Amino acid sequence: MDEANAILLLSCPDKKGLVARLSNFIFQNNGNIVHADQHTSKSGQYFFMRIEWELNGFALGREEIPVVFTPLARQYDMKWDLHFSDYVPKMAIFVSKHPHCLHDLILRRHMGELGAQVEAVISNHQDVRELTEQFGMKFFHIPITEKNKEQQEERELEMLREMKIDLIVLARYMQVLSGKFLANFSNRIINIHHSFLPAFAGGNPYQQAYDRGVKIIGATGHYVTEQLDEGPIIAQDVIKISHRDTVADIQTKSRDLERTVLARALRLHLENRILVYGSKTIVFE
Amino acid sequence: MDEANAILLLSCPDKKGLVARLSNFIFQNNGNIVHADQHTSKSGQYFFMRIEWELNGFALGREEIPVVFTPLARQYDMKWDLHFSDYVPKMAIFVSKHPHCLHDLILRRHMGELGAQVEAVISNHQDVRELTEQFGMKFFHIPITEKNKEQQEERELEMLREMKIDLIVLARYMQVLSGKFLANFSNRIINIHHSFLPAFAGGNPYQQAYDRGVKIIGATGHYVTEQLDEGPIIAQDVIKISHRDTVADIQTKSRDLERTVLARALRLHLENRILVYGSKTIVFE
Amino acid sequence: MDEANAILLLSCPDKKGLVARLSNFIFQNNGNIVHADQHTSKSGQYFFMRIEWELNGFALGREEIPVVFTPLARQYDMKWDLHFSDYVPKMAIFVSKHPHCLHDLILRRHMGELGAQVEAVISNHQDVRELTEQFGMKFFHIPITEKNKEQQEERELEMLREMKIDLIVLARYMQVLSGKFLANFSNRIINIHHSFLPAFAGGNPYQQAYDRGVKIIGATGHYVTEQLDEGPIIAQDVIKISHRDTVADIQTKSRDLERTVLARALRLHLENRILVYGSKTIVFE
Amino acid sequence: MDEANAILLLSCPDKKGLVARLSNFIFQNNGNIVHADQHTSKSGQYFFMRIEWELNGFALGREEIPVVFTPLARQYDMKWDLHFSDYVPKMAIFVSKHPHCLHDLILRRHMGELGAQVEAVISNHQDVRELTEQFGMKFFHIPITEKNKEQQEERELEMLREMKIDLIVLARYMQVLSGKFLANFSNRIINIHHSFLPAFAGGNPYQQAYDRGVKIIGATGHYVTEQLDEGPIIAQDVIKISHRDTVADIQTKSRDLERTVLARALRLHLENRILVYGSKTIVFE
Repeated sequence: MDEANAILLLSCPDKKGLVARLSNFIFQNNGNIVHADQHTSKSGQYFFMRIEWELNGFALGREEIPVVFTPLARQYDMKWDLHFSDYVPKMAIFVSKHPHCLHDLILRRHMGELGAQVEAVISNHQDVRELTEQFGMKFFHIPITEKNKEQQEERELEMLREMKIDLIVLARYMQVLSGKFLANFSNRIINIHHSFLPAFAGGNPYQQAYDRGVKIIGATGHYVTEQLDEGPIIAQDVIKISHRDTVADIQTKSRDLERTVLARALRLHLENRILVYGSKTIVFE
Repeated sequence: MDEANAILLLSCPDKKGLVARLSNFIFQNNGNIVHADQHTSKSGQYFFMRIEWELNGFALGREEIPVVFTPLARQYDMKWDLHFSDYVPKMAIFVSKHPHCLHDLILRRHMGELGAQVEAVISNHQDVRELTEQFGMKFFHIPITEKNKEQQEERELEMLREMKIDLIVLARYMQVLSGKFLANFSNRIINIHHSFLPAFAGGNPYQQAYDRGVKIIGATGHYVTEQLDEGPIIAQDVIKISHRDTVADIQTKSRDLERTVLARALRLHLENRILVYGSKTIVFE
Repeated sequence: MDEANAILLLSCPDKKGLVARLSNFIFQNNGNIVHADQHTSKSGQYFFMRIEWELNGFALGREEIPVVFTPLARQYDMKWDLHFSDYVPKMAIFVSKHPHCLHDLILRRHMGELGAQVEAVISNHQDVRELTEQFGMKFFHIPITEKNKEQQEERELEMLREMKIDLIVLARYMQVLSGKFLANFSNRIINIHHSFLPAFAGGNPYQQAYDRGVKIIGATGHYVTEQLDEGPIIAQDVIKISHRDTVADIQTKSRDLERTVLARALRLHLENRILVYGSKTIVFE
Repeated sequence: MDEANAILLLSCPDKKGLVARLSNFIFQNNGNIVHADQHTSKSGQYFFMRIEWELNGFALGREEIPVVFTPLARQYDMKWDLHFSDYVPKMAIFVSKHPHCLHDLILRRHMGELGAQVEAVISNHQDVRELTEQFGMKFFHIPITEKNKEQQEERELEMLREMKIDLIVLARYMQVLSGKFLANFSNRIINIHHSFLPAFAGGNPYQQAYDRGVKIIGATGHYVTEQLDEGPIIAQDVIKISHRDTVADIQTKSRDLERTVLARALRLHLENRILVYGSKTIVFE
């Protein structure tokens, strides 16, 4: 008996009857829909849907589903992805010197709530090696200079391919990834930015927030694109600050925020709840 | 051309194919689903759904829909309600002495964002008469004593029936309504309670919050049931307080909260987004 | 018996003994300090303080206080303001077409919690005239064009001088005020900006927020300076949005935020809790 | 040169001139006040103050301060505590089976932001032993049964005394401590309760929140007293939930909350910002 669910994430030009057509596809194959959510973009006349159904009792095997679904998908000009709830994605974590987000992911892994397999922690510094290895994860030190960057990214890509990495998490990774690198992981690299984007994009957002005298700071989890800090936003949260907070205080407060926002963005991705549309996300919660 | 949408709110024991069956009902009658959301209660094996579709082009007239839908509903043992998005519900507002929630509703009405027709403001005091009449709404002074309560409630019920009231809002109304009264408006009376229920149920929650020394206070919008302060919760929100806040400060802060939480609960009800299940609500946002 | 309190707001270069010196000044004149709060800017070595004490029993009369205090203030090179808690500041509200913030101020006035006297509502449009006059406030229609702007601002300044206006609130006023106008009301004009500054400064922040796909929107209450949207921030707050929210939904959600943030910024100003330091505020709460 | 600050936390019946008297005490001994905050309880006519000043240049040595201050304190009938900012308190963490709060404290310790020395982790189970020892902290397994409770608490008290423990943190410790035990650590035991107290006091608050259908859940950090869940509240925070959240989802969401609220309560205590007054706290932030 297959205890897992199938999850279909799709988008296509809007047409009458799409929900019926899709729910019929499940029903006629004896599937039980556990959750269905859809959204229609008013302006773009575009349709988005997430359907989750039980594989238990479903007439089609896992490999058969895409075969049988493809003609229907073509008919409506759909982009689609099929996921199974029992698949554990392989993840690589990139981190530089600040360990708080990495440590938070370690905690969630330790508690069995991460939902992904950490295959590698990759850093341009040695600072988090001990912490990483202490918890039985592989650590790779790949220093980046202006000169060796292209070469080192090649090496990283090779490693990631070998390890069949599904998802990269930039847990406070301070290097800019090249367009070539990003192209290999489109919508599969999640970054945590330590500001409430688009405010304080770029360098040192703590200092920027302090200098501007804002009363609230934030953190943003987003997919990485070539335009730095402009990728589709997945999750954001904020916390109050006051004139008493120094830059160091802002950093301390922000760290808690960064941890929870990154964890939230990651969870939404791993539960296959996100569709990217242009520079924005549809998040089915 | 009918620009409005139809909205179906339904619940029934969960069965395979329900989503398909329901979306087919719309599709086969040439309807375009604008929004569909469903929920299955894990424990109770119960199914809840909200479907909204365009009447424009729909094969069935407004009166035909229930006729044609009834057999399907019976087959699945459904409880259901059909609404039309262009119907403007008739509302009565009950208020005692504190005018802030009433005033907020007046503002929203003034700005055209209320979504309901205020047919009457009913109060056991005279305090808000001037404000009410100033904005062209009818005011009824119906004082309540222990002796006359039953009789006055009869009178109110008669008025409400005559005015064909769909919904009662208790905008800080300090009288307890009898079970008999409530039975006439099951799940159609919304109250704003000035605490984060179930904390500080009962009288003077501001004082209770002050005495307990909590660091956060709240407000709760809920349907009214015979068990005071135990009706199904629709919306809640909170705000921080500190040791500096006196009972009067707590009251001032709470007022802003009460206004927005009541407005939110009301909007959810008027957009037909709420299903009541036992002592809880399913809110399709 | 004088039931009011005196409030001293001051700033000066930091020196040892300032708190003692200042609290002695009160004590030696037989004053009872009700609240004292101070802050020292780490970087700038600057000292800020707010002291509030009871006039009841105080040895100095209201007019004597500044006379006696001046030598002490000079000694420490202080900037300072003296306020009395029973003084009701005179306020002018500028508004264009969106009435929600004005309406909110009317409510607070109606409930006796505004803390200021509304002397005039000034608008470049006629839309809010009726609402304003209905509540017994004076309305002045002063349309602004590119050509007449300088002249109209002169007229406004004259009116404001005549009415002895202490504070101007821009309750969604869509005209840019000239540097000359601003110079007359330095740190005495409060604006509500309908975004979480510095994000989405400039025009149409609702549309900007929608286009960027943020998951949280905000509102900012700030003092107005010549650099548009860059004045010292007094208060900010935020609310969550999702991909379902259209620009119109964002506007509706934002309105509630704008009302409460403006009310909060206004209250902090009227309670003399704000010191401006460069482009930032010290807020003693 | 002494780089540390002295911090005085005191409370006494309110009298005119207290702020002046206290700031003079610092000033006359050539101290530089870095931060001073005070509060007067309206009802109880009680005065609370926190003063922090630089020891660098102060005329009195650390041991002399209490000697010289005592007469002044007696005169005003003060309760007071003197702390030094460079003292690192010794802490014991009690935990049962849920490791998330412990893990969070380990992270903060690892990052050097804990502000206390963890002398021991004490548990009635073995679950967190490995995690604890992995980070070089001492673990003590002290199982509690109804029979051995008194005896085991004796043993614990002895250990704590030997280790000169200043503060106990109950990081999800599921045993009720006896009045006798508590008396040894009055206002020095901090507990994290997994609900928004006073709502859902007692057992299984996750289930209680689910059953009641609240839309927001919370967590509460408080000092432990004999009346279970009624100790003085230090910090609270909340998070939104919906009808979609199962009891397990509520637990997952709550865990993040519990971690940050406990960390916040702990930080406030360690920075000597809390005064307990009856069943409430004054928190000088």
